Amino acid sequence: MSPYRHVVIFQFKAEAPAEKVRGVVEAFRALPAKLPAIKAFEWGTNVSPEGLNQGFTHVFTLTFASKEALEQHYLHEPAHQEFVAMLGGLLEKALVVDYVAAA
Amino acid sequence: MSPYRHVVIFQFKAEAPAEKVRGVVEAFRALPAKLPAIKAFEWGTNVSPEGLNQGFTHVFTLTFASKEALEQHYLHEPAHQEFVAMLGGLLEKALVVDYVAAA
Repeated sequence: MSPYRHVVIFQFKAEAPAEKVRGVVEAFRALPAKLPAIKAFEWGTNVSPEGLNQGFTHVFTLTFASKEALEQHYLHEPAHQEFVAMLGGLLEKALVVDYVAAA
Repeated sequence: MSPYRHVVIFQFKAEAPAEKVRGVVEAFRALPAKLPAIKAFEWGTNVSPEGLNQGFTHVFTLTFASKEALEQHYLHEPAHQEFVAMLGGLLEKALVVDYVAAA
């Protein structure tokens, strides 16, 4: 079955303290251990040489077995909602796109 | 070595003909066979239930061995530049973020 990718891209506010930004990254990285619906997790900061990142700096790609897994065992889970609550006031913008990976 | 991910996200213009949009997808899908620096390729259209896609609809994730591979064996290759030329007039917006995948 094709993996379901959940791509989350953040731009933090200029005034967001670096320590809080690190805390968000660490909290996101801690989710897979709490939520087994997350089959794979990877992240990184933008290093594109093309200058088409529109201010976005942090990319997180989570893999689920299916959209149902995301909807039923991730989005509404307390661990995820606690993570989302941490973001309050820190983000300039966020983009979320999900796709079923095709070749 | 950690894979280098190149994430390309498009919103096509509302008036872009569906046939042209399909042509862009097919041309992008054809690049890995022409450019061996592309170690993996996957794509899909947005199916996120969260409504945070900001109008973006098409996601392509390409994997390279390194940033150097992208810079030296992809961005300036004629096959890639022909692909980019196809996009003219069809895109409402594009976002490109690259990251070295960390756990």
